[in-house]
Amino acid sequence: MRKVTKKGTQTKQGGTDVSLRLALAQINGRVGGFKANAEKIKSACAQARKMGADIVLFPELIITGYPPEDLLFKKSFIKNCRETLKKIAPYTRSLTAVIGFSEQKGKHLYNSAALICDGKHIGTCRKTLLPNYGVFDEMRYFTEGDEPVRFSLKGAQIGLTICEDIWEESGPGKTLSKEVDFILNISSSPFHKGKGKARRQMIIKRAKSYKCPIAYVNLVGGQDELVFDGQSLVVDAKGKIITQGNSFEEEIIFAEVTLSPKKRKSVAKGIRSYRAPASLSKAKIKKVPQLPACVYRQKSEEEEVYSALVLGTRDYMHKNGFSKVVIGLSGGIDSSLTAAIAVDALWSHNVIGVLMPSPHSSKGSIDDALALAKNLDIKTFTFPIESAMKSYDSILKDAFKRTMPDLAEENLQARIRGNLLMALSNKFGWMVLTTGNKSEISMGYCTLYGDMAGGFAVIKDVPKVLVYELCHWINREREIIPENVLTKEPSAELRPNQKDTDSLPPYDLLDPVLLRYIEQDLSIEDIKVAGLSKTEIQRIARLVDLNEYKRRQGPPGVKITPKAFGKDRRLPITRS
Amino acid sequence: MRKVTKKGTQTKQGGTDVSLRLALAQINGRVGGFKANAEKIKSACAQARKMGADIVLFPELIITGYPPEDLLFKKSFIKNCRETLKKIAPYTRSLTAVIGFSEQKGKHLYNSAALICDGKHIGTCRKTLLPNYGVFDEMRYFTEGDEPVRFSLKGAQIGLTICEDIWEESGPGKTLSKEVDFILNISSSPFHKGKGKARRQMIIKRAKSYKCPIAYVNLVGGQDELVFDGQSLVVDAKGKIITQGNSFEEEIIFAEVTLSPKKRKSVAKGIRSYRAPASLSKAKIKKVPQLPACVYRQKSEEEEVYSALVLGTRDYMHKNGFSKVVIGLSGGIDSSLTAAIAVDALWSHNVIGVLMPSPHSSKGSIDDALALAKNLDIKTFTFPIESAMKSYDSILKDAFKRTMPDLAEENLQARIRGNLLMALSNKFGWMVLTTGNKSEISMGYCTLYGDMAGGFAVIKDVPKVLVYELCHWINREREIIPENVLTKEPSAELRPNQKDTDSLPPYDLLDPVLLRYIEQDLSIEDIKVAGLSKTEIQRIARLVDLNEYKRRQGPPGVKITPKAFGKDRRLPITRS
Repeated sequence: MRKVTKKGTQTKQGGTDVSLRLALAQINGRVGGFKANAEKIKSACAQARKMGADIVLFPELIITGYPPEDLLFKKSFIKNCRETLKKIAPYTRSLTAVIGFSEQKGKHLYNSAALICDGKHIGTCRKTLLPNYGVFDEMRYFTEGDEPVRFSLKGAQIGLTICEDIWEESGPGKTLSKEVDFILNISSSPFHKGKGKARRQMIIKRAKSYKCPIAYVNLVGGQDELVFDGQSLVVDAKGKIITQGNSFEEEIIFAEVTLSPKKRKSVAKGIRSYRAPASLSKAKIKKVPQLPACVYRQKSEEEEVYSALVLGTRDYMHKNGFSKVVIGLSGGIDSSLTAAIAVDALWSHNVIGVLMPSPHSSKGSIDDALALAKNLDIKTFTFPIESAMKSYDSILKDAFKRTMPDLAEENLQARIRGNLLMALSNKFGWMVLTTGNKSEISMGYCTLYGDMAGGFAVIKDVPKVLVYELCHWINREREIIPENVLTKEPSAELRPNQKDTDSLPPYDLLDPVLLRYIEQDLSIEDIKVAGLSKTEIQRIARLVDLNEYKRRQGPPGVKITPKAFGKDRRLPITRS
Repeated sequence: MRKVTKKGTQTKQGGTDVSLRLALAQINGRVGGFKANAEKIKSACAQARKMGADIVLFPELIITGYPPEDLLFKKSFIKNCRETLKKIAPYTRSLTAVIGFSEQKGKHLYNSAALICDGKHIGTCRKTLLPNYGVFDEMRYFTEGDEPVRFSLKGAQIGLTICEDIWEESGPGKTLSKEVDFILNISSSPFHKGKGKARRQMIIKRAKSYKCPIAYVNLVGGQDELVFDGQSLVVDAKGKIITQGNSFEEEIIFAEVTLSPKKRKSVAKGIRSYRAPASLSKAKIKKVPQLPACVYRQKSEEEEVYSALVLGTRDYMHKNGFSKVVIGLSGGIDSSLTAAIAVDALWSHNVIGVLMPSPHSSKGSIDDALALAKNLDIKTFTFPIESAMKSYDSILKDAFKRTMPDLAEENLQARIRGNLLMALSNKFGWMVLTTGNKSEISMGYCTLYGDMAGGFAVIKDVPKVLVYELCHWINREREIIPENVLTKEPSAELRPNQKDTDSLPPYDLLDPVLLRYIEQDLSIEDIKVAGLSKTEIQRIARLVDLNEYKRRQGPPGVKITPKAFGKDRRLPITRS
C-alpha cells in the first residue's frame, strides 16, 4: 500500500519525486491542560523522530485543549498557551511540526496552526472558516484568517488548513490546491453516529477534486458532552486511503507519501509562503525503519456508538478526578446498559450498583438487577425505600389531605432514590451516573432531582430503540444484560402495574417522531409516522417543548447523534 | 420641552421644517407568541393613530419575540412570522410602522425591520452588526445586512437601524447620518445594572457625533434569564433628551421632533432608499391631540435591580403558565428577599412559604421566617424534617458505618427540603423558587437537588452584598424584612453552630474577588483585594472553577450583572 520511491527519481513533469514520511499524532488532549498536552506533544515528537518522520501533525488547538470555550477570554490562559508553544518548540528537533494553538495578535484572537521547523516557529496559519453552528461558537472567540498558508519542504509545496477550512469545497483548500503538492489539515472534529464515514468521504472527495493528497489528523477523547473519535487519515490525489487511524484510540499514525512536485513560483498570489530550513531536507536517521502496517479496524455502527459512550464516560470521570461511579439499578434496560458502559470505561471494581426497591418493585426487577451485577461482577447495595416514603407521607399528610396519590408521590420515590445515591456520592466521592435515555428525556418521562440526579448522563443522547440495539450487541457473544431485561415490558415501577406505554407511544413509533422533530427540526405538519395520528404526533411535540426546563437541569452526557440536548440545541424554556 | 413648529416654516438652509410625531411602542413580547404579539401591535397602532402619530416604532424581532434562539431553525416558525407580518400590515393604516421580524430570503435569514406604510410593506432594513458575544448568538442564525436603509416622509429623509447597528460609531448609522435627517433604531437590548444609563449615554453621544436626532425603542419584559428594561428614548441632534420611556413598564411613548431637512438626492450611494406614499404627508386627524408630558421617573440603582427581578420573575411565571409559587423560608436573608420579590411580582395570595426546621434550626430562624411571612401576608406550611432525616440515617446505617457525619448528612437535610417543596409543586402546580445568591452559587455553597431544586432562581445573579442593599432598600419606609434577618450572622444551619464564615471569607471581601474573577475575567495574579491573601484568592477562584458542574444543573434566573451564569458565561466543566 505504501510505495516507497527513491529520492531523485525523475517524474513525468520533469521534476523530482519527493517522498515524505508523516506522523499523525492522534492524541487525547485536556482543556487547560497545558503541561499534560505539552508532555504528549513531546512524546509524539520523539516517536516521530525515531520513525524518521519529516512532518508531525497535531490536532487543532491541541495546546489549549478543545473546545476551550470562554477560557479564551482569560488573559492568563492565552499567556499560558503562548508560553507552552515556546516551551515545546525545541521538542520538534529535526522535524516539521504543525501544532494547533490560540494566537493573540493585538485585539484579535485566531484559531491557528504553528509551523515549527527543527525547533523554530517559522510561520502560522490562521483558520479561515469559523464554524458557528451546532455545538460550535467559534465566532464568539476568533477572527477569521484571510490568507491561505503553504510552506516548502524537500522541494515540495505543502498547504496548511484547519478543520472547517477543508469542509467547504470553495474554502482555502481550493486556492491552495493550485499552488501546492500536498494539503495538511489539523482538526478537532467531534463524533456523532455516522460522522466518521461522512468525514472520510468528504476528504476523499476533496482530494479528488483538488487533485491533491491530503493528510488529516483528528483529536481523540471526551470533553464534557463531546467525544472526538480520531480516525485520522491520509489519502492520495486519487482519493485512495493510504493509512487510517483507529476510532476512539490514542495513537501515532505513520504514513509515507510520494509527491511529484510541479515547478512553482516561490511567491504565489494571495498565499503566504514559508520555507522549511534546508537542514530538514537531509535524511533524518541513518537507517529508516520500516513503517508498521495500517491496522485500521472497521467498526459496526453499534460498536462505534458504544465505544463513544465508553470513552466519553471514562474521560469525563478521569479528567474530573473521579475513579468510581455509583448507579441505581432498577433491573431495567437503561440502567443495565449504563452499568455495562461504566464497567468497560472504569473496570468492575470501580462501579457500584444500588438496588432501591419500593413496594411497587417487582421481584423480577430485583432479580434482574442482581443478575446483571453478577454478570458485570460489580458490588451492590440494597436500600429498601419504603420507610422513607412513609416518612414523607407523614410529613405531608396535612398538606395533602383530600388529595389522591398522583405524580407527586411517584416523584418522591424517584427523589428518595436520587438522595440515597447522592448520599453515597457525597460520603465516598463516587460520581452518580444517571440512566435516562434520549426518548424519555425528550418526553420529560423522568424525575428532576430523582432519576435525573447525578454527575453524568451516559446514555442521554441514545434513543430507546438504539438502547435495545446496543444491548443486543453487548450480548453478541455471551449474556451480559440478562435476557429478561431485554424482553420484559419497560416500566418505571412507581405505581402498581405501571407501564411506559401508559404514558408514551411504543418506542419504535416514538423514536422516529423524535428524530424528525428534534434532530431534523421538522415542523409537526411535515412529520408522518405510520401508526401515529396527527394528534399523537402533536402531543409528542408538545411534550418535547414543555420539558425543556427539565433538560436544562440535567447533567451532561455523551453526544452521539447529529443533534444532542446541550450546546447543540438552544431553545428557550419560555415560549408560546 | 417639545417645540411644536408649524409646518411650512422656512429653515436656515432654505428648506422647510418638518414636524414628525412619533409613537415608540415599548411593549412586552412573547417568544413564539405570534398571535399575542400581533394583538399588541394592533393596539399600539390604534393608540398611535389616535394620537396623530406619523411613525410608530416596534422593538427588534417583536413578531417572533426575542431572542427566538433555535426556534429560528424551524420552517414553520419562519412561516408563522411571515404570515403574521402580512396579517398585521393593515393595522398600520395611515401610519408608517417599523416592525422587527425575521426575514427569510433564499437560504439566508436576516434580523430585519419591516417598513410598513399605510398598510403596505414597502421596504426592509437588515441588521448589519450581529452581536455574537455575551448572551448573544446572532451569527448562529442570521446573515449580515450589507446596505443601510432610509426612507422619505414629509420631505425628510429617515434612516433605519437595528439595535447593535447603533452601538458602533462606525456602523451603518455613520453612513446614514450624512444622508438623513433622523435616525430610528429598534432594539431588544437586555438589562444589567447600569445598562440603562450606558445606553442613554451612547445614544446621546451618537446623536451628537452624527449631528442627527435619534429615536430608540426598546423591548420590555422577561424572557428566561433575560429581562428587557425598555427606557426607549428620543434625543435631538444636540443630544438633548426629548422624551424617555420608563424602565420595566410597558408603554407607548409619544414625542414630536422638528427636522430641518437638507436638500438631498433621492438616490444616495450605498444606501437603499424608499419613499413613503404621499398620502402619509397629509394631516392624520383633524384635531391633533396634545401629547402627554414626559413622566420618566429616575430610579436608584437598588430600585432598578429590584424592578428587574420583579419583572423577570413575574414574566417567567406568567409566560410559562404558572400563577403561584412556593418558597422555603429559612429565616435567612436570601429567602426573605426572594419572598419579597415574589410578593411584588405575583401578590401575597400567590406566594406560599414553607418552614422546614431540623434539630439544627434555631428558634430565632423560625421566628424570623414567621415574622417575614406576617409582614408579607403570605400563607405558610411548617414541615419539621427530623423524621425524614432519621429514616435516611437508618436506610444508610450499614453503608455509612465507621464514617463520621459530614457533608453527606448535611446535604441530605437540604435535599429533604427540596423534595418537600417539589412535592407541593407537583401536587398543586406551584413553581418552586430557589433562593441562592450569586456569591454562594459562585462558590458552590449550596446543595444540588437541595436548596438548588426549583424552577426559577430569582436572585442567582445578585451578589450577597447587594442582597443586603436590596433588603435595606425594601425596608426604606417600613420593616418588611425583619430587622433580625438583616443583623444576624448568615448560617446554613445544617449542623450545630454553623456559620457561613466557617467555609467562606466575609462577603464584603468575597464579592469583590468574585466580581473581578467572574465578571471581569481577571487572572488570579491580577486580583488584589485588601484583607485577602493570595492563597485565599486562589482558593476562591479554585472553588468557582470546581463548582461549574453544580451551576449547570441549576434553574435559570434573572441576569442583573454584566456577566451572569448562563448563556453569558460558557465554561467547560472538564478542565485542568
